[in-house]
This record gives sequence, structure tokens and C-alpha cells, in this order.
Amino acid sequence: MSKVDQANREALNKMMEAEPVLIDIGQAKSVIPGMKDNLFLHSGPPISWEKMSGPLRGAVMGGILYEEIADSLEEAEELASTGQIEFAPCHHYRAVGPMAGIITPSMMVYIVEDKKHGGFTYSNFNEGYGKVLRMGAYDGEVLNRLRWINEIYAPLLKEALQLAGGIDLKTLIAQSLHMGDDGHNRNRGSNSLFVRMIAPYLIESELGRQRNCNGLTIDLSSIFPFFKDIKPTVAAQVLAFMHSNDIGTLNFIMAACKAIALAAHNIEHSTIVTTMARNGTEFGIRVSGTGDQWFTAPSNYPQGLYFSGFSEQDANRDIGDSVITETVGLGGFAMAAAPAIASFIGSKPSDAIESTMEMYEITVAENANFTIPSMNFRGTPTGIDVRKVIEKGILPKINTGIAHKDPGIGQVGAGIVRPPMEIFIAALHELARKM
Amino acid sequence: MSKVDQANREALNKMMEAEPVLIDIGQAKSVIPGMKDNLFLHSGPPISWEKMSGPLRGAVMGGILYEEIADSLEEAEELASTGQIEFAPCHHYRAVGPMAGIITPSMMVYIVEDKKHGGFTYSNFNEGYGKVLRMGAYDGEVLNRLRWINEIYAPLLKEALQLAGGIDLKTLIAQSLHMGDDGHNRNRGSNSLFVRMIAPYLIESELGRQRNCNGLTIDLSSIFPFFKDIKPTVAAQVLAFMHSNDIGTLNFIMAACKAIALAAHNIEHSTIVTTMARNGTEFGIRVSGTGDQWFTAPSNYPQGLYFSGFSEQDANRDIGDSVITETVGLGGFAMAAAPAIASFIGSKPSDAIESTMEMYEITVAENANFTIPSMNFRGTPTGIDVRKVIEKGILPKINTGIAHKDPGIGQVGAGIVRPPMEIFIAALHELARKM
Repeated sequence: MSKVDQANREALNKMMEAEPVLIDIGQAKSVIPGMKDNLFLHSGPPISWEKMSGPLRGAVMGGILYEEIADSLEEAEELASTGQIEFAPCHHYRAVGPMAGIITPSMMVYIVEDKKHGGFTYSNFNEGYGKVLRMGAYDGEVLNRLRWINEIYAPLLKEALQLAGGIDLKTLIAQSLHMGDDGHNRNRGSNSLFVRMIAPYLIESELGRQRNCNGLTIDLSSIFPFFKDIKPTVAAQVLAFMHSNDIGTLNFIMAACKAIALAAHNIEHSTIVTTMARNGTEFGIRVSGTGDQWFTAPSNYPQGLYFSGFSEQDANRDIGDSVITETVGLGGFAMAAAPAIASFIGSKPSDAIESTMEMYEITVAENANFTIPSMNFRGTPTGIDVRKVIEKGILPKINTGIAHKDPGIGQVGAGIVRPPMEIFIAALHELARKM
Repeated sequence: MSKVDQANREALNKMMEAEPVLIDIGQAKSVIPGMKDNLFLHSGPPISWEKMSGPLRGAVMGGILYEEIADSLEEAEELASTGQIEFAPCHHYRAVGPMAGIITPSMMVYIVEDKKHGGFTYSNFNEGYGKVLRMGAYDGEVLNRLRWINEIYAPLLKEALQLAGGIDLKTLIAQSLHMGDDGHNRNRGSNSLFVRMIAPYLIESELGRQRNCNGLTIDLSSIFPFFKDIKPTVAAQVLAFMHSNDIGTLNFIMAACKAIALAAHNIEHSTIVTTMARNGTEFGIRVSGTGDQWFTAPSNYPQGLYFSGFSEQDANRDIGDSVITETVGLGGFAMAAAPAIASFIGSKPSDAIESTMEMYEITVAENANFTIPSMNFRGTPTGIDVRKVIEKGILPKINTGIAHKDPGIGQVGAGIVRPPMEIFIAALHELARKM
């Protein structure tokens, strides 16, 4: 076995052994090492304000308004452009965020611990579909929802997680693939399971039993009309929100994937991709054997299905850290487990199976934890080998949300996208140079 | 088009148009028309005490103890054998019950309304796996759980259903097939969805907010250890029980299936099967064009996977009304949607797909409501045509639980079974005679 194959085997084993557990929730500036008062984390590789796309700029401005360090959009834009706010990739702080991926200092974040290898990873909270910060929207409704999440939802879930003693995410993800999830764009299974297992803890939490939200509330009466007549307990309100948001588990699943990917990172000679991420302008990858160096190029436009009233004219380039799921064998790689996703991303169920089959061509192993029932419980294709990507000319296939290209609007659809080939070539050159 | 084909098309259309909604819960003797104080309903075609198998006898004796009309097992057996308790099939009362299917007068039952055709159908509550009444067990733990279900769980769910204004079961079943359910032996998807949508109502119900169970409680601390330290609210306790029981939705899904099947019943010349049911001794079918006449023969032994410590030596003959799911295109007919079921019933995922493919041979349509994502959203095979069963020599394939052959023990496994061919031949003769 070559040194490279040996290194890749080691990387894969470490990924398979990782044990990500959702253990706690805390405020970014208190729990993420290195987080500062004027630091905003974003998705993808490093980027300056000048080069940021519309949705990322929108999310930054929304984040500034949310932090109340500016009073107007204009002021927020001014602040962002003058260097008073520092920007850094989530990935530089063991964190991940879907789409714009903005994590501001006062935001509550999920804390995932790898019980096997030690170390923590982080992600922000999911706001639902449509007009949301992560898609570049920033109006009053968006900010109100973020405040409700931070001050009501997150503290309650923190209490519940403590009562529960943490939630084993490896098992949760594995079960969800047997319920038609891909772990990226379809998370109805994991969301449903998570609600079931956390509900009794939410109800019995100190905060969960209260009806007082200190004036902070979101309107869920379109889903639960009886909320018009009663003032729900915090637990009921949070459970209603969780019911309304089938992508609610994506964020901590991403943190779990980040933990899995980190376990395989920094192994000499390994050609396994350990980071894929997009900032809305560029697609970046990092490879185990080349450490923390980014290889970047302009990201592509997704092909997909658009929400009513929107078309591909409205689409921003590919954006977000959620492709960390594909990096460890989920999302586009696990699509065969989730044929029902076809109706959401504008493809056919047979494409879902072909996607998974294609990804076996560029990966080094079948996942020992994540399996596809319809393929006789075959493990999902896992561990993208830079060499195979180039040799076969096959690029990773990614499920993704689509953000509007302008700030302030939000999600316009969902679809499929691939990274640019040149970043894999650049990575292989660097791997060769190091050897 | 022949008269028969026309009749079958009408039958199928009515099945597809049925709109079963879980609207309420009530006590059997109050809500099931014709239910009497000394009447016990059971699964399958009519049967006398003398011919009942072990698990059905066990469930009858358990039901007598539950009703407190006997003080000991011996007394219960005596009472059952002397004609003081009347027996009748659930199916004669628009009701269905899995396995033994015992519905006693004071038991709470689900009430499902067909909003399209009118009329109500009923089912009892699901007690979970293992040592349970429906599998023929009757000890103190079984009776205590039944009492908790009747006096705590059912009344709370009744309140919640009223707040919710009912739950649309056609949509719930359809969504669950996209989450890896077959609607019979695998109901993790529908159970998870049901918990999510009902949780806020349970919490806000009058009874749900209380901690007082009047001394009635079941131990859920093995699943939720923190229940050792707190006295949970009724809502938390009920949600914990629902989380513990992935087959919890089967019973009202069966009532929905009964509503769908009834919509197609009693159509002159139709050769569509509208009832399949087993009492543990005999398998019985009824056909749309022959009305309420049963065609019966000894039921077979399931082939399956046994729980630890049990083997096929312990198995009772095929038993239960749950095959009403197969009658309307779910269960064994929808197995391709649920490949993960293979690990539960001792088969291979490829068998699941083959089962569904085989059932297209003996059915008249593809279900318009229940679809299989991996088969390009093809409708499940629906509407068993007696003619095709005989012509093709293919018998319906049924997912089933397996009860111990002796009373008092419970579930020993799960597997696959088929009905005896002779009942289809007898039905076809009667159809021919009537024409």
C-alpha cells in the first residue's frame, strides 16, 4: 500500500470513529475560542467586504443591526466597509454556518463534542426557509426571529440538552438516512426524531413551563391556529417552531460533520478533502495532507427549482458551509437514501440514485455509519480523494439552497451544484510538491 | 369495458377519494354503534371460544381481567367459555384491531371519519412491542399499561385532537411513505410526524399541564432517565410513551385503511377485495361484489425474524386485522418505500422492492395518494383483484407481527405471510354465481 493510500486509510478510520454529540448551547463570544466583539464569522474561504456577494453582504448588514452596533442599513454598510468589523471564515474557528453562515458575537451556537477524539465544533441556529438572515435578508421580521431564537429557543434547548445529557448525532444522522433524509437538503427525518426525543425535556425545563417570553414572540398561528386563543408556554411555542422547520436540524448536523471532517484533517500525505465551503463568491477546499491551506476559485451557479416568482436570473453563486455534509458522505453523496428530495430540487428520483453511484467513483470508502437501505444498506460514498476527482474527471455533487443575488431578499430555490475543477488540480499540485 | 372492470374502476375511485381524518377518541361502548356491555370484538372472521388460538384466548382473558368482571385467570377462562361474553369480529362494527384485536366495552378507541363519503371507523390503542394484550399477554404490567392508556393517554390525546381540529390521515400516511414507512410494520415516519404535530396541543391541554395521574403511571425512566427525579406532567409522560413506541400510529392508520376499504365495499360485480383479516385460526376475506360474506380457511404461519430466545416453534398462526393496510395498498404492497424494514422482518431490501413489484400483478391500479419515491413516485399497487390472484397464482404478501402460540406470553417476532389460495377461489365462485 502506498504512503498516500495508508494516510487516506488512517484519515477514513478517524472519520468513522468520530463520535459527535450535541452537548450544549452557548453564546459565540463566550464559547468559541478566539471569538471577539467585533468579529463576524462567515461561510466559505476568507473574503473581504469588497468581494462579498449580495446575500453575504445582506447577512453581514443584518448581523450588524442584530448586534445593535448600527441604527440603519446605511450605517451598517458603512461600518462593514470601513474595517471596524473583522471578517473570518467559520471554518477557521471550528465552526460552520449554512448559506451566508454569519455568526455574530452575541449569537447562541450549538456546541458539538467529538467524544472519541475530543474537541468542540460549533454552528449557529436555523431560522427556517424564505426570508432569513442566512439567505441575506435583514428586515424587522428577520431580526425579531433571530432575537426570539437567541433569547427563547436557544436557552430552552440548552436546558433540555442538559437534562437529556446530550444527543448522539451519529445515531441521529444514521437513523435519518433510513427515513428518507440526505442530511443536507432533506432533514424531515432527523427533525422529526429530534423533536420526539427532546420534547419531554423541553416541557419539563424551567423555562419551558413558563408562558412569559418577555414580549419576544413569533407568530406560529398559521400552523397552530389555537395559538391565537391561548398564550402558549415557551415549550409549546418552541415545539411549534421546530415542527414548522424541517431543516432545523441541519445546523447541528453540519457541526457534527465538521467534527467528523476535522478528525481526518492534517494527516501527512492524505489526499482526502476535509473542507469544502463557499462564501458566495468563491468555492474553497482544504485537503488533509496540505493542512489549513485553501484552494479557491469562483463558485458556480446552482441548477435547480425556484420558488414561485423567482428564476435563475435571481440566483447568487453557490454559497455556504453546508457542503461539509457532502465532505463526510451525506447530502449529494447520500441522495440515494432520499429520493423524495427530487421534488424539492427539481430533479428525478433516478438522478438521486445516480448521484450516489457517481460519487463512489471519487471516494475511498463506503461509510461504516451512514447506510442506504435501498442499496442493501451499502455505506454512503465517503472520503473525497483529490486524485480520483482529477483522474475520473468527476466533481462532487452538492445539494444546496439558492439565495437571491441581492441583499435583503432571501431564499429563492434549491438545487444541485458542483465545485470548480481547478481547485482540485491546485490541491494535487501542492500535495505533489509537499511529497 | 366489462361490467366487472367498470365496477372495479368505481371501487378504486371511491378508495382514492376517501378522506380519513382522525377526529376524536371515545369509549367503545359509547361510540361504536351496537357495542354492548358483554361484547368483546376480536380480529379476523367470526370465531367461537373453542376454536380460538392461544394469543386470542390470552387477549380475551386479559380483556376480562381488564374489565374487572373476573378476579382470576381461571374465572376469566370460565367466563369466556360459558357464553356470558359474546364475541364478534371488529370488522362487523366498522372497527379494526392489530393482532388479537380485542376491543372491550370500556376501552377508548380512535374515531376516524371519512370526510368524503361520511361514516366512522374505529380502532383501539397501541400498547407497544413485546408483552402486550394484543399479542395475548395479560399480566399486571399489561393491565396497568392498558389502564394508563385508557385513563391518561387517551383522554389527553382526545383533548389535543379537539384543539387540533383533527388530523388528516391520508396526508400523514402519504408523507410517511416518503420517510421509509410501509404503513404496517414500519411506522417510525408517521409516529415521528404525529408526535411533532400533536405535541403543542398535548402541552396546552387541560390534562396535559397536570402532574397528577391519580396514581396511574408507567415507568418510562429507561428511556428518559430524568423521569426518576421529577414527577413529569401528563403531557411529558404521554410524549415519552409516544417516543418509545414506533408502531403507535398503526392503529389509527388501520382505521383510516378501514375507511378507505369500506368506500369500495358493496359494489355490484366488483372483484376487489375489501377485507382481509385473521383471527389466529382462520384467514378471512370479503369482496366488494359479494358484500358481507366471509370466505375463510386456516391461516398460515409467518416466515420471519424472531426476538432473542424465541423461534418458529413458538409462533402462532397468522393473526390480526392489520392486513387492512395491505388491502388498500400499504404494508407488504408498499414495502419498496420501506427497504429498512428488512432488518426487522428478516429479509433483504431487494425483497422489499420485489414484493411491491409482485403486487402490481394482482392489483387493478397504482395508488393516487400513496407513492414510492424510489420508483419515481409510482403509486403503490392497490385494489386486489380476486381474478388476478387466481389467474397469476400470486397471493397477497403481508408484513406481520408474530405472536406466541400460547396465551400470556406476547410478541416473539415479525415476518412475512400470505393468505391461503382457497379463499380467493371460493370468492370467485360466489362472484360468478351472483352474476
